[in-house]
Amino acid sequence: MEYRKIKDEDIDIDRDVEVEDVEKSFLLSVPSVSGEPKIDTHKTKAQWKRKSLVTFALTILTSSQAILIVWSKRAGKYEYSVTTANFLVETLKCAISLVALARTWRTEGVTDDNRLNTTFDEVSVYPIPAALYLVKNLLQYYIFAYVDAPGYQILKNFNIISTGVLYRIILKRRLSEIQWAAFVLLTAGCTTAQLNSNSDHVLQTPVQGWVMAIVMALLSGFAGVYTEAIIKKRPSRNINVQNFWLYIFGMGFNAIAILVQDFDAVVNKGFFHGYSFITFLMIINHALSGIAVSMVMKYADNIVKVYSTSVAMLLTAVVSVFLFGFHLSLAFFLGTIVVSVSIYLHSAGKIQR
Amino acid sequence: MEYRKIKDEDIDIDRDVEVEDVEKSFLLSVPSVSGEPKIDTHKTKAQWKRKSLVTFALTILTSSQAILIVWSKRAGKYEYSVTTANFLVETLKCAISLVALARTWRTEGVTDDNRLNTTFDEVSVYPIPAALYLVKNLLQYYIFAYVDAPGYQILKNFNIISTGVLYRIILKRRLSEIQWAAFVLLTAGCTTAQLNSNSDHVLQTPVQGWVMAIVMALLSGFAGVYTEAIIKKRPSRNINVQNFWLYIFGMGFNAIAILVQDFDAVVNKGFFHGYSFITFLMIINHALSGIAVSMVMKYADNIVKVYSTSVAMLLTAVVSVFLFGFHLSLAFFLGTIVVSVSIYLHSAGKIQR
Repeated sequence: MEYRKIKDEDIDIDRDVEVEDVEKSFLLSVPSVSGEPKIDTHKTKAQWKRKSLVTFALTILTSSQAILIVWSKRAGKYEYSVTTANFLVETLKCAISLVALARTWRTEGVTDDNRLNTTFDEVSVYPIPAALYLVKNLLQYYIFAYVDAPGYQILKNFNIISTGVLYRIILKRRLSEIQWAAFVLLTAGCTTAQLNSNSDHVLQTPVQGWVMAIVMALLSGFAGVYTEAIIKKRPSRNINVQNFWLYIFGMGFNAIAILVQDFDAVVNKGFFHGYSFITFLMIINHALSGIAVSMVMKYADNIVKVYSTSVAMLLTAVVSVFLFGFHLSLAFFLGTIVVSVSIYLHSAGKIQR
Repeated sequence: MEYRKIKDEDIDIDRDVEVEDVEKSFLLSVPSVSGEPKIDTHKTKAQWKRKSLVTFALTILTSSQAILIVWSKRAGKYEYSVTTANFLVETLKCAISLVALARTWRTEGVTDDNRLNTTFDEVSVYPIPAALYLVKNLLQYYIFAYVDAPGYQILKNFNIISTGVLYRIILKRRLSEIQWAAFVLLTAGCTTAQLNSNSDHVLQTPVQGWVMAIVMALLSGFAGVYTEAIIKKRPSRNINVQNFWLYIFGMGFNAIAILVQDFDAVVNKGFFHGYSFITFLMIINHALSGIAVSMVMKYADNIVKVYSTSVAMLLTAVVSVFLFGFHLSLAFFLGTIVVSVSIYLHSAGKIQR
C-alpha cells in the first residue's frame, strides 16, 4: 500500500521530510541509511517503511484499546473518574515526548527543528484540535438523549465520510473517483460489520439525533484534519516538539474538565480513587495510541488513520472471539469483505503522477 | 454503462452482429437506421440502446416476478402443480418465438439466418442448458434437508461469483481487477441487503449444505454461461430461432417432469387444477423474463444479467414497501450502497481497448 501518491499534485507539503527524521523519532527502529548517499529510492523506501510501521502500531494499539475496554467492562463498572484518567493520558504523552526529545538533544544537539522554544505564531493553532475534541465530547453526553449506545456506534461511522470530505476541502488533497468509491465502501463495510439484531433501531433516530451525529462527525473530522495541517505545516520540525505542544494544551483542557466535573470527587476520595491495574493499562495504551495518531498524521495522513482504525475494529472482533468467546456474525464477515475490497481499491485507485 | 468494452480482446464473437438485427427482434423498437450508411457510431449507439432496453426489460420483469410470488403467497398456498406451470411457461415462450418469427418471415422472407430448419450440429448443444437446470432443480429438493429457505436465499448469492468465474474460464472474456472487485462487492452487497435477524443460522449449515450450494451455483452459472456461448456462437442467427430450439427442449424436459412427479394429480384433478388469475400472470411473467434473459445473453452477457437480477432484487424490496408495507432494514440500505458502488466500479473499471 503506497499511500504517498494520492497527495494533491499542487501541494506536496512533506516533500522536505528527511530520511534522518526516522532515526530521530522514538518508537521506530528503521535501519540507518545516513551514511549512504541520499538516493531517491532509499528515501522512498525508508518513508514507506516508516509509514507502514506507524500505521501498524496505530492499528495494534487501537485494537488493544478496544479489547481493554471490553475487559474492564467485564471486570466491573468504571469506578474512577474519567477526567482524571484523561488528564493522566495527556501528561504521559507529554512526558514521553520530552524523554524522546532529551534523547535527540543528547545525540544531535539542539537545532532549530528540535528546540522546544516556539513562537506565538507556531503555537497559537495548537489548542484548536484539543478544543474541538472537548466540544465533541460535551455533545456526546447530549446525543444519548436521542440514540442508544449501539446506535451511536453505528452513527459514528459518519466520521469516515466527514474525514474524507474535510481532507479534500481543507488539505486540498485529491482522491481519485475509485478512492472515493473505496471510502464509501469503507463506511458501509464498517457499519455492516457492526450490525446486530437491534441495529434497525437507529433508523428511528429523531432528526435531532441525526443532526448531532453529523455535527459530531464534522467536529471529529475537522479536528483530525486540522491536526494533520498543523503537524505537516513545518515538515522538518521534530514530531516530539509538535506533540509536546499539542499535549500540553490537552493537559490544560483536561485540568479544567476535572475542576468542572469531578472536583468534589477528587477532593473527597482522592485523585486515584477507583483506579485498578486495567485502568493504568488503559491509560498507557491511550497515551501510546495518541502518539501513534500524531505519527500517522506526520508520516502518512488522515485517510491512512481512518483505514487503520477501521481495520483495528475488525481485528478487535476477531481477537474477542478467542479472548471472550464472542461469536462473529454473517454481517461481520460481509463487512470484512467490503472493507478488504475497499483497502484494495484505495491502493489500486491511487492517482498516478 | 458501456459493457461492450469488457470483452476479451482475443475473441470478439459478436463482432458480426448487424444493426439490422435490432429491427428483426420483436419486443424492441429501435429507430430504423437501415436506410442510412452504416457508420460505426450509429451502430454502437443502436447496440447500446438495444442492450439497455433488454437489460431494463429483464430488471423490471425479474422484479415483478418476485412481487407476484409474494402476492401469490399472501393469497394462499400453491394449489397448482409446479411442473404443469413450468411446462406452460416453456410452451408460451415457444409460441411467442414462433409468432415473432412469422412476422420476420412476412417482412423479410426466409433467409439462412431466420429459417427454423437446423442441422444436428447446431441443435445438439441446445438441450444442455435445460438438462443442467433440471439437475439443479432436483438438487434443490435435497438441499432443504440441510438449509432452511431464508438460508438458501443467502447461499444462492454464490451464483454471482460462480457466474463470474465460469464466464472468465469458459467464454474466456476478461474482467479487469476493478471489475472483479466489483463482482465480489456485488455478492457481498446482495447478501447484506438480504440479512435479517435469523441470517446467522446459515453459518451453522453442515458441510453437505455448503457443498450442495456450491455445486448448485456452479450448475446454474454453467447453464447461464453455456447458453450465452450457444446463442453467441452464430451471431447473425435470428434470436427467435435460437430461442425456439432452446425452449422446445425445455418443453420436453418439463413434460418428463410432469409424468414423473405429477402424473396422478393431472389425470385425477385435471391439468389446470388449482390455477388462479395470479398463476396465469406468473406464467406470462416467467415466459417474458425467460425471453428477456435470452436477449440479454445475445445482446449483452451473463455479467449484465447478474447485475440486472441483483438490481431487480433491490427494486422488489423497495416496491414491496409500498405494495405490502414491508420495512426496509439498515442492512438493506448498506447492501444497496455496496451494490450501487459495485455497478459504478464495473463501469469505471472496464478494460480500455
